[in-house]
Amino acid sequence: MSEPGDTENFRAEAHRMVDWIADYLEGGAREYPVLSKNRPGDLSLALPVNMPSEPEDLRQIWKDFESIVLPGVTHWNHPGFMAYFGITGSGPGILGEMLSAALNVNGMLWRTCPAATELELVVLDWLRKGLELPDDFFGFLCDTASISSLLALAAARENADIGVREKGLSGRDDIPPLRVYASDQAHSSIAKACLTLGLGLEGFRAIPHDAEYRMDVTALRKAITEDRRAGFRPLAVVATVGTTSTTSVDPVPEIVNVCAEEGLWLHVDAAYAGSAALCPEHRSCLAGCEHADSFVFNPHKWLFVPIDASALYTRHPEVFKRAFSLVPEYLTTPMTGEVVDLMDYGVQLGRRFRALKIWWVLRSYGLSGLQSHLRRHIKLADEFSDWVDRQPLLKRAAPAPFSVVCFRAAPTGMEQGETLDGFNMRLMEEINASGEVYLSHTRLDDGIALRVAIGNIGTDTTDLERCRTAILNGLQCLSNP
Amino acid sequence: MSEPGDTENFRAEAHRMVDWIADYLEGGAREYPVLSKNRPGDLSLALPVNMPSEPEDLRQIWKDFESIVLPGVTHWNHPGFMAYFGITGSGPGILGEMLSAALNVNGMLWRTCPAATELELVVLDWLRKGLELPDDFFGFLCDTASISSLLALAAARENADIGVREKGLSGRDDIPPLRVYASDQAHSSIAKACLTLGLGLEGFRAIPHDAEYRMDVTALRKAITEDRRAGFRPLAVVATVGTTSTTSVDPVPEIVNVCAEEGLWLHVDAAYAGSAALCPEHRSCLAGCEHADSFVFNPHKWLFVPIDASALYTRHPEVFKRAFSLVPEYLTTPMTGEVVDLMDYGVQLGRRFRALKIWWVLRSYGLSGLQSHLRRHIKLADEFSDWVDRQPLLKRAAPAPFSVVCFRAAPTGMEQGETLDGFNMRLMEEINASGEVYLSHTRLDDGIALRVAIGNIGTDTTDLERCRTAILNGLQCLSNP
Repeated sequence: MSEPGDTENFRAEAHRMVDWIADYLEGGAREYPVLSKNRPGDLSLALPVNMPSEPEDLRQIWKDFESIVLPGVTHWNHPGFMAYFGITGSGPGILGEMLSAALNVNGMLWRTCPAATELELVVLDWLRKGLELPDDFFGFLCDTASISSLLALAAARENADIGVREKGLSGRDDIPPLRVYASDQAHSSIAKACLTLGLGLEGFRAIPHDAEYRMDVTALRKAITEDRRAGFRPLAVVATVGTTSTTSVDPVPEIVNVCAEEGLWLHVDAAYAGSAALCPEHRSCLAGCEHADSFVFNPHKWLFVPIDASALYTRHPEVFKRAFSLVPEYLTTPMTGEVVDLMDYGVQLGRRFRALKIWWVLRSYGLSGLQSHLRRHIKLADEFSDWVDRQPLLKRAAPAPFSVVCFRAAPTGMEQGETLDGFNMRLMEEINASGEVYLSHTRLDDGIALRVAIGNIGTDTTDLERCRTAILNGLQCLSNP
Repeated sequence: MSEPGDTENFRAEAHRMVDWIADYLEGGAREYPVLSKNRPGDLSLALPVNMPSEPEDLRQIWKDFESIVLPGVTHWNHPGFMAYFGITGSGPGILGEMLSAALNVNGMLWRTCPAATELELVVLDWLRKGLELPDDFFGFLCDTASISSLLALAAARENADIGVREKGLSGRDDIPPLRVYASDQAHSSIAKACLTLGLGLEGFRAIPHDAEYRMDVTALRKAITEDRRAGFRPLAVVATVGTTSTTSVDPVPEIVNVCAEEGLWLHVDAAYAGSAALCPEHRSCLAGCEHADSFVFNPHKWLFVPIDASALYTRHPEVFKRAFSLVPEYLTTPMTGEVVDLMDYGVQLGRRFRALKIWWVLRSYGLSGLQSHLRRHIKLADEFSDWVDRQPLLKRAAPAPFSVVCFRAAPTGMEQGETLDGFNMRLMEEINASGEVYLSHTRLDDGIALRVAIGNIGTDTTDLERCRTAILNGLQCLSNP
């Protein structure tokens, strides 16, 4: 926008886009199949092989967006999106993103945008209080839980006092192999953090789960004892509150005891379920988390904030600084040392103004509004769960403590030689082909299970009705091919 | 937005915000001091200590944004922003961000949004061709160059064939200490990547620079030889095209030879200056980069794309997969193995639809439009550089090959006992207090230098005139206190 004319084109196009977005949020999303029907290459082959040499009209770009890009979009913001975790790019969150893009600040240092740092600390503190976490939890934003957990485990590694910052890990005969523990239901980002940090896959040990997919703490104790005998240095335990497969909650209070006895860092991954604790009747899911060394939950998952925004808390911010802070001369300011410079706590120097969208969401819904949406989602999941329990051909596959229900179909209409897993995968594809809902799957003790994950703010009883219809139609279709 | 009324509030507020943003882009930004005048706590103490319990009106949030948040904003999108690197949240880029927030997709897998994956691959290929990089460079987006370089060095570590993925680095007597090399002018993110990856500060060796702040390749060769003798395993060299302090360009073709002879991974950090290579007359800055193993440049730096967007290219995508890919059952799809799932190449599972804003920018400006803005910036820097050279009280501190000029003041008006560095820091604060421009500093061989970094698309001759005036006023003010 270097010339007034350019700005006027932007203004006109942005107004048109606002109307499109408002219509989309108001239900327009339902006009699209949730899961894109594209085949690989449909989009890329429809676009030119080079960028245009001359400027193109904003209207033309929009037309191509509608005709070429949109058919390739899987609509995460569609009320029928129930795969993985349901998420929401809410109106207030979009307003925050618009402004963040326009201001385009980099909040790497306090001084490079005091508002970005301070608003981040304020909204993280609001959320901390909402979750009833302790006063000494210092919170800041990362982009994703993958990064939050990476930083937390890097802090655990630094906290082991084996000189990792100076000497690293390689070529040293003075340190044992390090090990991180998490349930076999923990998110893959935990093992990936171990890869990144140089612990390797062998530096990650998966602990078995109990009948309700929670970490078996007896097995955890046994593993730690075994590992110490075998020469490993246990470093940290990651407890999950709301696992990805079934949203099970690890027994954090017991894990706290293990960590205290063994001198291990406790990181809690509550990326999805943490939001539920804003409701007093669900606060118990965070029991014990007040003793964690670090804790992550994602406002971009179940708190109506557009991706990306992951809230990381720790009672040891100085350990994160020891792990990550590097301040070359060109990043010093007259305030260095007197203010919080958020670049000091993690990998990334560049920091978007993510607090704006959270601030907009928290204020426009208010705690009561957030709670009512969370409760509505949990109620919808309860009703869906009850419905599954009443269906002769369906079976619930795990407890559903929050807004995700796992189930599988009983074996009717199976093709010759087909496994139950194969049947359920076919059923899921049949349901997804309806275009009205999108489900994903996981593997549980008894095999493949389908997941109905409710979390989009627009999801209502009609969407669940469509979901039930799609499941029954799918069953019928597979039984009468 | 669960009720129509909510959407209508959003629509009205978003239209108002579009007008504010358009005015801001059209020059409204100039009404604010570039560098916020806030003191620590000004913003945080003005906000309530708890999130509101009840919903608040979008208008009220906006009013508080204007009165409480805005004074704390340092305006990176102000044409007078010349600190660090000048960046731009351009109109077309903002349109892309608006849509990305509304669709709110997570492009972790091809299937979870085919358009996000394919458009990303297409625009990265457009940019690759624009930079005349080889056909076998596979490109994808990261959030920041900090992450891009982290992934690249993780790939280098994996490529060393010492079983890092399985065994990690710790507790092993079969591997030597690893070492990464970069010039002492390289960005701090390179040393930070070494910290994160478990190489430690000792795993990073800074190579001295020559008289023009380019890596001294003779010193590099010597360091590698020394280190091999001392038992280190050299892993990778990071060459910088456009260093943060002076935008110097390391002698990549010679470094290519060293890496080939020594069997080292070559990563090129062209985060800032890579964009310049879109102009044929500046393409030579990337000479040799066709032989790199990995290469990063940031469209969010000097290509008018709002942060964050960092383009990472590699000729060894399979090594990145080996370093990072972990596919639990719940992340498999019927297409697994047949399509590119971008989660496989890095740390983060969550992936915003960043390609949209790049697509909007590339198309609306076209290659010719991008080139003309880049050339305009370089010309403004040349003119400013000439002006510095004509000033008796100023001295240029380094060559200025792109759009950043380093200079310092000659010692007049120094307070008793004040060093030249102290004087220049005072001068910078005086200039920044003008509110019309914002400069940052660095330390060069002769001491502190101030930097004028031109990169905002709105920056024009009047801004440079204001900058010159602020410098002269600052000098006068310090000389006649």
